[in-house]
Amino acid sequence: MKQEDLEKLLYSMSLEEKINQLSQLTGSLYLEGAELTGPLKEQGITEKEMQLAGSVIGTFGAETVKKLQERYMEKQPHHIPLLFMMDVINGFKTVFPIPLGQGATFEPELSEECARAAAKEAAASGVHVTFAPMADLVRDARWGRVMESTGEDTYLNSCFAKSMVKGFQGEDLGKKDSVAACVKHFAAYGAPEGGREYNNVELSEHTLREYYLPAYQAGIKAGAALVMTSFNTLNGIPSTGNKWLMRDVLRKEMGFDGVLISDWAAVDELIRHGYCENAEEAAICSLEAGVDIDMVAGIYAKRLEKLVTEGKVSEKLIDESVLRVLQLKNNLGLFENPYKGADEKEEKKWCLCEEHRELAKKAAEKSFVLLKNEEQILPLDTKKKIAFIGPYTDSQKILGAWSFIGDSEDAVSIKKAAEEVFGSEKVTYSKGSLLLGDKVHMEGFGRSFSESAGKEEQERMLEDALEKAKKADIVVMTLGEGFLQSGEAASRADIRIPKIQRKLFKKVWKVNKNIVVVLFTGRPLDIRKISEKAKAVLCVWMPGTEGGHDVVDVLRGVSSPEGKLPMSFPYNTGQVPVHYNEYSTGRPSNGNDERFCSRYLDIPNEPLYPFGYGLNYTRFSVSPIQLTYGDERGQIKVKVNVKNEGDRAGTEVVQLYLQDVAASMVRPVRELKAFQKVTLLPGQSTEVDFEIGEKDLRFFDEQGRYISEPGKFKVYVGFDSRTENKAEFILLPEEKLIG
Amino acid sequence: MKQEDLEKLLYSMSLEEKINQLSQLTGSLYLEGAELTGPLKEQGITEKEMQLAGSVIGTFGAETVKKLQERYMEKQPHHIPLLFMMDVINGFKTVFPIPLGQGATFEPELSEECARAAAKEAAASGVHVTFAPMADLVRDARWGRVMESTGEDTYLNSCFAKSMVKGFQGEDLGKKDSVAACVKHFAAYGAPEGGREYNNVELSEHTLREYYLPAYQAGIKAGAALVMTSFNTLNGIPSTGNKWLMRDVLRKEMGFDGVLISDWAAVDELIRHGYCENAEEAAICSLEAGVDIDMVAGIYAKRLEKLVTEGKVSEKLIDESVLRVLQLKNNLGLFENPYKGADEKEEKKWCLCEEHRELAKKAAEKSFVLLKNEEQILPLDTKKKIAFIGPYTDSQKILGAWSFIGDSEDAVSIKKAAEEVFGSEKVTYSKGSLLLGDKVHMEGFGRSFSESAGKEEQERMLEDALEKAKKADIVVMTLGEGFLQSGEAASRADIRIPKIQRKLFKKVWKVNKNIVVVLFTGRPLDIRKISEKAKAVLCVWMPGTEGGHDVVDVLRGVSSPEGKLPMSFPYNTGQVPVHYNEYSTGRPSNGNDERFCSRYLDIPNEPLYPFGYGLNYTRFSVSPIQLTYGDERGQIKVKVNVKNEGDRAGTEVVQLYLQDVAASMVRPVRELKAFQKVTLLPGQSTEVDFEIGEKDLRFFDEQGRYISEPGKFKVYVGFDSRTENKAEFILLPEEKLIG
Repeated sequence: MKQEDLEKLLYSMSLEEKINQLSQLTGSLYLEGAELTGPLKEQGITEKEMQLAGSVIGTFGAETVKKLQERYMEKQPHHIPLLFMMDVINGFKTVFPIPLGQGATFEPELSEECARAAAKEAAASGVHVTFAPMADLVRDARWGRVMESTGEDTYLNSCFAKSMVKGFQGEDLGKKDSVAACVKHFAAYGAPEGGREYNNVELSEHTLREYYLPAYQAGIKAGAALVMTSFNTLNGIPSTGNKWLMRDVLRKEMGFDGVLISDWAAVDELIRHGYCENAEEAAICSLEAGVDIDMVAGIYAKRLEKLVTEGKVSEKLIDESVLRVLQLKNNLGLFENPYKGADEKEEKKWCLCEEHRELAKKAAEKSFVLLKNEEQILPLDTKKKIAFIGPYTDSQKILGAWSFIGDSEDAVSIKKAAEEVFGSEKVTYSKGSLLLGDKVHMEGFGRSFSESAGKEEQERMLEDALEKAKKADIVVMTLGEGFLQSGEAASRADIRIPKIQRKLFKKVWKVNKNIVVVLFTGRPLDIRKISEKAKAVLCVWMPGTEGGHDVVDVLRGVSSPEGKLPMSFPYNTGQVPVHYNEYSTGRPSNGNDERFCSRYLDIPNEPLYPFGYGLNYTRFSVSPIQLTYGDERGQIKVKVNVKNEGDRAGTEVVQLYLQDVAASMVRPVRELKAFQKVTLLPGQSTEVDFEIGEKDLRFFDEQGRYISEPGKFKVYVGFDSRTENKAEFILLPEEKLIG
Repeated sequence: MKQEDLEKLLYSMSLEEKINQLSQLTGSLYLEGAELTGPLKEQGITEKEMQLAGSVIGTFGAETVKKLQERYMEKQPHHIPLLFMMDVINGFKTVFPIPLGQGATFEPELSEECARAAAKEAAASGVHVTFAPMADLVRDARWGRVMESTGEDTYLNSCFAKSMVKGFQGEDLGKKDSVAACVKHFAAYGAPEGGREYNNVELSEHTLREYYLPAYQAGIKAGAALVMTSFNTLNGIPSTGNKWLMRDVLRKEMGFDGVLISDWAAVDELIRHGYCENAEEAAICSLEAGVDIDMVAGIYAKRLEKLVTEGKVSEKLIDESVLRVLQLKNNLGLFENPYKGADEKEEKKWCLCEEHRELAKKAAEKSFVLLKNEEQILPLDTKKKIAFIGPYTDSQKILGAWSFIGDSEDAVSIKKAAEEVFGSEKVTYSKGSLLLGDKVHMEGFGRSFSESAGKEEQERMLEDALEKAKKADIVVMTLGEGFLQSGEAASRADIRIPKIQRKLFKKVWKVNKNIVVVLFTGRPLDIRKISEKAKAVLCVWMPGTEGGHDVVDVLRGVSSPEGKLPMSFPYNTGQVPVHYNEYSTGRPSNGNDERFCSRYLDIPNEPLYPFGYGLNYTRFSVSPIQLTYGDERGQIKVKVNVKNEGDRAGTEVVQLYLQDVAASMVRPVRELKAFQKVTLLPGQSTEVDFEIGEKDLRFFDEQGRYISEPGKFKVYVGFDSRTENKAEFILLPEEKLIG
């Protein structure tokens, strides 16, 4: 449909129709058997509102969606199709590693492929819009939702936000296999006080703009069709009612002209925030802030009509929002084909197809981060006797909190994968302990986790484990958080692995010191005590459908780990928030024992494992930095030579960090500005080149300008954020760089 | 001297003289034997700079000061006296409880007395200016300097800042026994990221103005002669170079016209912050921001003259600063009498006099917070056998980090005090364990703490303790942090009591369950596991000179505890920062188990012991709130009846909290607005009245106005910040309040 036809359509709609386009209901209301006599009535949703609602959340399945759309269209006065939205985060039926794991790949192109695959499955299943990517910067490992982020770095997050948007949306939103992306959560949801979910956020405008906004901006620039508001307040104003944030920053400055949707019931939460006195105020406030769609709060549908009639809300604002919703539907091609990609055959073809499983396998392998590898215990010497011990040994619950479409029965456990390649005489398996503890029940995202075992049973488990550990040459301990311990509403004040597993570890360690820990987690954990004792630690996040194959192939060296931490692993819980790119203090500690420095008395300032860190099965070296300058554009070239010094092929992430030595605002001690992955055969070396220009040196100054300032800069190139391989250059007042 | 004479003096001074008035050197340079051939030369300080320096830090003692002043004046070209400044925090020779403990008294008038007493001692000892009070709001118990604050509440801090300024300065700065106060650290030093000392601070302007600035303002309004800049950056700008903060906010808005001094070497730290490229820039930047005195960085003295000559700094700025310094000297009466209060006789008379010791005793008793008292184990039944066990049993190191003038030999240990009142047959004493551990050495503030004991000796200590514990009816365990584990540069990532003492506690508990813990600390600690097991916990902070007498008298019930927590004791380290006055979230948890609320999975939202909490030896009740309104000023009266329901006399702090239910900015869940202490005999009751007016309901809105907004408010009156004794009232648009 052309723009003018959309406008014609808009003006032909009644006020009631228009308002309901801005209302999103839960898709479950529309399912057969959901009668208006039951819960629907209790919720006060009328049949009319259902007939007119512009979108639904959470419904999928080609058959269901087609049937529902058909029934809806029959009664829709203007034959405007219903929009189906849902959370497709790290995969649909085929589950890829959690976003934090994807961040560890330092390979945004791979996440584009994953998003593309997820979109194909979701689109065939009738989904039009996904609530991804989450572009929130995260620094506090207590917050459960760090698993849905790609980490603590602005630049890395920007790369991933862009790739994921491109992956979901494909070349053209109108194509059958495209799904509209929704960049979330605008803004700064990732910085809640105390790491406590939904808590308030305090940020200077400077830090907001320097660190937090760029990744959202990257997703928007890549064409994201939607943006979602965040649950938090930002400096005293809940985002969903923040006119400055949405109208001035998001729309005007960042140029976003798509659909802005509230997060779940966030319009209603303006009241609980004490920002609005009642539903009428919340409706006015959200609409004026620029929120186009009210997700499931029902406040727009119930209140806006009266408010327009009373002259308290301008119909023009409503028209603007409705037009954006209609444009989205049009861009998705729904007016031409309201069923879009929904197709049972395609659904069957793509969901869990071999191609997607292979992609899932590749992505997870690349996400694994080898944190420690003493005595080169990894890759495993498969001639030795190996015992797999731990609650994740035979677990399929390795998909992560957000993968509620994926079925854990489709996931490959470590045991299953190991049995495929190892003979049974040399390899044993034992659970050893429960994952979380007796009588644990957790719920969330439509799934649950339950565990129960009597004391005797637990003792038997332990005995079995210790017996096998004693007989083995090497023990692979599969430990970690439960999948519902991270994700939304999963803040933890103690970020160690569960106590029951710490006990298991201690007991196993007493009988066998050759321990390799395979760590399942949705967040950086405090693993200090485990990491001290274990010979190797491999962080595998929540790896997804092919997790077991990945773990086994990496352990036995068929594949090599190449992931790098996208978020620091803190020294202990008391160190959070901790991040490599902190602002320079006036009393840097430099790691010595001097008291009057910016440090703790009892722990180092440095995290246990820093951002960008991760080992290989081989060793790489990097040469001193060579700077060349003099080209016409005033750019500077940064050159290093990287060599594989070991005897295995491997992949390394060459990382470039910058520091602005002195500026009119205090700058970070260093910031990632570029990275390149290189794969080298044993003994092979290669030159790695980067270019830095004046634009890379810009920041938001006190006057709110995005500028660079002449002076001295440091550039670091190496394999993690602590590299001391550095050089200096100068930015001249004429915006040229010299060495 | 009259203002015009001061101005005349100013204009008669050379540029060099003027600049050196703005330079503060360490007093130790002037001591006999400190030759310019030695370290002075290395530091690059010239004899001329010493002759002209306007002030010194850290020198005291009537005889020394007088001698030094005499020598200085002989060579001072204009006979401008030297200003002697130093940190007199919680006392001078007589040491009062640390400021955090003083906050627990909820009795600012008492702190005024303490400050007065400290001023008398300090003034007699030649001190002209003290770097106190610290008015920084604190919410993160990891930060060591919380001990120097009065806590997490804006209103409480304001009351104390005001009282302390009045106490130090007395009625007239010119009096011999007056010491000029310096409100510090401007601004928001108390909110470093991660609780790490000197780390950066991020705050919205709203929160800065609502929570952080009022206590500084209260100190300034009370007439503080000086303000000190803070070490931290505030939103990307180091305070010492923050023109907006110092010129616009401090000078113009807050009306401060006294002397602004940098913190220790903070002018130089502008370079390490990366805010200035070199010393010249740092000098320009600090002076332009309005910093009058450069504390020991030597940058003003070394750089300003050349910068003026080159036209890079206006001499007018220097004149303004010099005039403020001269005015301060004049207000202190130094032109009339450069020795001011310095007087050996007075010094001897006041330092550690009986009157001051009594005041110290009273203040410490009132600062003790009874956190738990099961089975009314306290007060101790003195007919029973009591064992005092723990490293604080016979320790005099109970003065706190900042009391470096006070002598721990003058402090009364628990054992000494107990021996004065208990017979030796029923009471035993045992150290039980080291305080921190073997071979510990800590330094700071010119003092050190060292500990060493072989394994055998430690075992003997433990055996002795367990033997005595077994034989006792009640064990009083004296545990806690070391005095150098809090204070400046004492951030701790793990805020439990030292491990060696946790072990001692566990072992003693195994042989005797009747444990009373007396907790020495400079911060809220994670005492959850101890508090679960002990029958009683009495927090005594760092109590000061009379500490032992206080502890023994409170334990045996000669005095009653009446302190209230000025800062929440967190549930565990992973909960910090935690404070009662948080902003309302959109998903309040209400303490139930629902997942999708603002909460942690593993711990409650509530601290272990909240702000305002503290038990008595008796029980108090509070009636429902009665509201009356209708007076002409539109005020509302809040009335409750408070009754002593127990059989002992006692003192309770009646606390009034307000909540603005809905506003144009999200408001705190509640805020302390008033409190009253009442002392009641057994069975006695009294009416407690408060008044609330429109002014109490104001806040900084988004437009930067300090306004109230009509609507609903809740008022809570009770004995801690969790009280649910509440009523509602309405603010009408005409600024009147109705019930």
